[in-house]
Amino acid sequence: MIVITSNHTPEERIQEIIAVIEKEGLQAHVSRGNDRTVIGLIGQIEPKLAEHLRQMKDVENVVKISKSYKLASRDFHPENTVISIGDVKIGGGELVVMGGPCAVETPEQIDEIARLVKAAGGQVLRGGAFKPRTGPYSFQGVGVEGLIMMAEAGKKHGLLTITEVMTPEYVDVCAEYADILQIGTRNMQNFDLLRKLGSCGRPVLLKRGFSATYDELLNAAEYILAGGNPDVMLCERGIRTFETYTRNTLDLSAIPVLQQLSHLPVISDPSHGTGRRELVEPMAKASVAAGADGLIIEMHTDPDNSMTGDGVQSLFPDQFAGLLQDLEKLAPIVGKTFKAAPSTVQV
Amino acid sequence: MIVITSNHTPEERIQEIIAVIEKEGLQAHVSRGNDRTVIGLIGQIEPKLAEHLRQMKDVENVVKISKSYKLASRDFHPENTVISIGDVKIGGGELVVMGGPCAVETPEQIDEIARLVKAAGGQVLRGGAFKPRTGPYSFQGVGVEGLIMMAEAGKKHGLLTITEVMTPEYVDVCAEYADILQIGTRNMQNFDLLRKLGSCGRPVLLKRGFSATYDELLNAAEYILAGGNPDVMLCERGIRTFETYTRNTLDLSAIPVLQQLSHLPVISDPSHGTGRRELVEPMAKASVAAGADGLIIEMHTDPDNSMTGDGVQSLFPDQFAGLLQDLEKLAPIVGKTFKAAPSTVQV
Amino acid sequence: MIVITSNHTPEERIQEIIAVIEKEGLQAHVSRGNDRTVIGLIGQIEPKLAEHLRQMKDVENVVKISKSYKLASRDFHPENTVISIGDVKIGGGELVVMGGPCAVETPEQIDEIARLVKAAGGQVLRGGAFKPRTGPYSFQGVGVEGLIMMAEAGKKHGLLTITEVMTPEYVDVCAEYADILQIGTRNMQNFDLLRKLGSCGRPVLLKRGFSATYDELLNAAEYILAGGNPDVMLCERGIRTFETYTRNTLDLSAIPVLQQLSHLPVISDPSHGTGRRELVEPMAKASVAAGADGLIIEMHTDPDNSMTGDGVQSLFPDQFAGLLQDLEKLAPIVGKTFKAAPSTVQV
Amino acid sequence: MIVITSNHTPEERIQEIIAVIEKEGLQAHVSRGNDRTVIGLIGQIEPKLAEHLRQMKDVENVVKISKSYKLASRDFHPENTVISIGDVKIGGGELVVMGGPCAVETPEQIDEIARLVKAAGGQVLRGGAFKPRTGPYSFQGVGVEGLIMMAEAGKKHGLLTITEVMTPEYVDVCAEYADILQIGTRNMQNFDLLRKLGSCGRPVLLKRGFSATYDELLNAAEYILAGGNPDVMLCERGIRTFETYTRNTLDLSAIPVLQQLSHLPVISDPSHGTGRRELVEPMAKASVAAGADGLIIEMHTDPDNSMTGDGVQSLFPDQFAGLLQDLEKLAPIVGKTFKAAPSTVQV
Repeated sequence: MIVITSNHTPEERIQEIIAVIEKEGLQAHVSRGNDRTVIGLIGQIEPKLAEHLRQMKDVENVVKISKSYKLASRDFHPENTVISIGDVKIGGGELVVMGGPCAVETPEQIDEIARLVKAAGGQVLRGGAFKPRTGPYSFQGVGVEGLIMMAEAGKKHGLLTITEVMTPEYVDVCAEYADILQIGTRNMQNFDLLRKLGSCGRPVLLKRGFSATYDELLNAAEYILAGGNPDVMLCERGIRTFETYTRNTLDLSAIPVLQQLSHLPVISDPSHGTGRRELVEPMAKASVAAGADGLIIEMHTDPDNSMTGDGVQSLFPDQFAGLLQDLEKLAPIVGKTFKAAPSTVQV
Repeated sequence: MIVITSNHTPEERIQEIIAVIEKEGLQAHVSRGNDRTVIGLIGQIEPKLAEHLRQMKDVENVVKISKSYKLASRDFHPENTVISIGDVKIGGGELVVMGGPCAVETPEQIDEIARLVKAAGGQVLRGGAFKPRTGPYSFQGVGVEGLIMMAEAGKKHGLLTITEVMTPEYVDVCAEYADILQIGTRNMQNFDLLRKLGSCGRPVLLKRGFSATYDELLNAAEYILAGGNPDVMLCERGIRTFETYTRNTLDLSAIPVLQQLSHLPVISDPSHGTGRRELVEPMAKASVAAGADGLIIEMHTDPDNSMTGDGVQSLFPDQFAGLLQDLEKLAPIVGKTFKAAPSTVQV
Repeated sequence: MIVITSNHTPEERIQEIIAVIEKEGLQAHVSRGNDRTVIGLIGQIEPKLAEHLRQMKDVENVVKISKSYKLASRDFHPENTVISIGDVKIGGGELVVMGGPCAVETPEQIDEIARLVKAAGGQVLRGGAFKPRTGPYSFQGVGVEGLIMMAEAGKKHGLLTITEVMTPEYVDVCAEYADILQIGTRNMQNFDLLRKLGSCGRPVLLKRGFSATYDELLNAAEYILAGGNPDVMLCERGIRTFETYTRNTLDLSAIPVLQQLSHLPVISDPSHGTGRRELVEPMAKASVAAGADGLIIEMHTDPDNSMTGDGVQSLFPDQFAGLLQDLEKLAPIVGKTFKAAPSTVQV
Repeated sequence: MIVITSNHTPEERIQEIIAVIEKEGLQAHVSRGNDRTVIGLIGQIEPKLAEHLRQMKDVENVVKISKSYKLASRDFHPENTVISIGDVKIGGGELVVMGGPCAVETPEQIDEIARLVKAAGGQVLRGGAFKPRTGPYSFQGVGVEGLIMMAEAGKKHGLLTITEVMTPEYVDVCAEYADILQIGTRNMQNFDLLRKLGSCGRPVLLKRGFSATYDELLNAAEYILAGGNPDVMLCERGIRTFETYTRNTLDLSAIPVLQQLSHLPVISDPSHGTGRRELVEPMAKASVAAGADGLIIEMHTDPDNSMTGDGVQSLFPDQFAGLLQDLEKLAPIVGKTFKAAPSTVQV
């Protein structure tokens, strides 16, 4: 960490800053420049100290040299984390495709979609039982019944399941029925929820907040890791920018950046990341080409009548199956493996 | 609501769209242009219908003409909402100043700061007992003890109190000790928390999410109003933009815009909105000039040693008192009243 | 175009609006809803009319149904534009790779880099002779001499050349020496420059402004097309967002979106789009997977000593050659062709 | 300047970096931390060196301690710049109000508006003769005739004039007819234009690019200052954010920030900064409260029929006059003076 002092800071003020640093058992290295004086801190630095120094008079800036997260960092854990759930390994070279509807609606709906996800080669069934909605008058999900429907569909068709949990009190019931818990973009900094996930016993897919920096996403993951749960996937799902033609701007650079900063698997969500069906296929391929460890994609048998209105970004089953055929060819070019189902399966 | 169809949409497809509209008991008015066909919907429209129509094939866009929130809208409630708590009236022409530390630290600290807030003319004491923090290793607040300390300080010095509640399970205890509950920027779309606030029995100050649109903020307020709590204040506290010199970009246009769209009082937070002490004073004045009903400002007796590191944006007591002196002169120019304390009070 | 009037607009005011519309020789279709009245315009609408209507009293909003650009639109020109320059066809299924240094420095430098671009399979040599720089004290390019050096290197090695033109007065000299003229991100709305390019006789690569919407980019292209030059390529090069880890956020959704809205070829610039060498390769692949018609990539033989400081985003020659080998395999998966040079060429 | 090296950089690599620094005649101070090594540079640093160091292998980051601009900096020029034009002094404590139409249309229009600006107490007449427009089919201004019309109106009514210059070749003619030259937001980084303004002999109002940082704005000003023209005003006119309800987000924090970083006067443009007439008045007052040295405001006698469509953000003459009455009361509270015209003047 480095402390930069204002122009012409008096010597006694610099000595005060040094005293604060040394009181914490750290060494202070002083470089006096023409315009500024810079003080380097050496030793194990508590986060609070940066905050303290930043607010001292005459301190113009405090630059952190080391990262604020540790367990999520590749510096700390150089090897890729590979999350094993049943036969599926996430982060280990096998491309993982999660598909399904925005919301679980009926047993028949989720069963039929599960059949189609499996038939296309997907490994995980996605579906929301509880839905976060901007306004209070929109459809809010079918609740615990939806979890049960999805668990049965997953079991029957040999798929893992993933569902979103929105509040700490529902973590246990979601963990009972689903194989993977998903944290939505609006909850990335719901810190009580993150803490609760530290001990939920299930892998977690953590979606990037739509205005969160990479650093904030990794700090959010740190909450879960620090709580004792090592199985966290990071998910890029689009950020909010000035461009409104797409619902969000899918930031694919996040994939190689997060893989470089962290050892955790990185999943891409081209459905929410674009909000437009016709962009899902090219952006899914682009995600894999950029190195994604997996994809989470909305697919619906009747998107015109989905209950959440997210049908506008859901693939039709034949588009989903066609995409997975292409991914089988694309994956090896970037050092991944993926096996789409034989095209003879009837969609 | 208006449905815009793609170029050259076949007539039977348009008839299908009309059938969907009429099935809901609404009228459909069709205008055929050179390039597009536009269908206007007339009647009471359910939110789900917009979503359904948007995802139908050939529908290029759905434009909402009416707002998605109702109780928060000035169309629905033309008169200003005035929130009365004890002697203080918020939204009724009296400028309200809330001051205090980022975090409650000790009984002595909060008592001394309360004395200074009162002495300067402030009406409400602010202070956090539970702190939302980006990383898990930062100071997280002193908890319920802090609520008690603040309640005592407020009572002793004749100030109302406001504190942040971060999770549904803490709503009751916060409502027991504080006069106003604050929802932080990261929780603006924590929908379970919003629902719980609908029945908390306390006025709520709802901070704008740092990437939330006005529309999303008003929809978040709608959750609380729809839950039965009419006493909601909206708070502009800075949005995230490309400019990083300031911690956030305080969007003061939000003040007149929200007052025009809604009847709810609008409070400005120049401390978080700028993140820099030297900007708090000019931006506080600018907020009042733009029409704010109140201000929430961080003040600390020893900002260099605040426990959260937010001291960097906290005013010193004499700056706070000086600002309030200026606000007394400024308020009448924009049709507000404010009474700073006599300058003889010793700071 | 649709005009939406405020709540409870009096009938005579609506009649005034209709009169304005009909005076322009257009038809007005009126739909009266519960809250708003909507007036649809039918006929050939002048851009000025939208502006006029928007500023009339009681007009709440004007929604354009048709696009503001015409020549750039796929509605107007359904077939892909294919730009032929010598043997190279851009936009027709052949992937085009443009490579070279940020700035032309010396004859030896540009000659050696041209040799390496050709050896790797690239078709176009890029290099800046005039450099736009944020501050006045940075290196500003070697000027016309650089154009000559680059033209000779291109000719010798059988490469087309592309260079940036920054100001109208230099269009002619750049067009004399280079095969393609590039408009930089800061000049996307330099309208005099755009007009001048309408008659420059050379294909133009138009970079998206770092804060320009798709619509603004296509309107900028419209200036060039309307000036009589049909050979415009659109280039995504990263937009400015809140994320600062990358220099820009490369918005790959722009590729399929622009190809859908327009018939013009779309090129991706992963070098400026990320600003970090280690991200260029994954984002180049992702660009091709998303459907890009070409890539423009910085490559330097001695990036540590580049004169502009952009070496930090330049590939080393062996990285460039390796990337092009991978693109040869990737292109067919998305329906493109590309031929990297034989790996026996010595880099 | 500080160079931060990657984790575990070998000693010989650090020595190479030091050699580069010392070759430039600078001193290098090395601090070795647990994770990183930090090298401080002492002496007069050329901009190119930062760029060179940043791209060296093992260099993780280069942090500039000093600013990249010099002449624009308050460090270099501690006293406020006061620009004197005739009787008007800008930046010296007198609030300056510039008012007028978006575009000059006819001699009668500009004469009548000039009369009203003067009658209200404004000191400068604004008006565009050349208009930058997003699309090629919009009204582009009346050209040099407009300059003449405006000059005459200004002279007749005793007002200074300001007009936008869009391209280097028009600098001379604009400087002939107008007292102040304005650089529009899209041209803030039109570097040839900036260079030309260095010797134009007129004060320049430089508008912040709608996505420019404070640092970039000050570097753009540096181009003009370095060219020999000391009379530059900085203008905040709204930035592009995710919020689309307003045309731009007026960033009023820019006012105190720029005044702190620089000695140049700061003007606010609440018309373009909001794009909505009803927001101009509150945001004009907020700008003054935040410390602005002046305002530039659109006013039109017939905004419903303005030729550019910007009438939607133009004040009516009586609104303009009323605002200036309020500013007379507001200015002294923030240490400024302003004299609105007597209310007996007939509007």
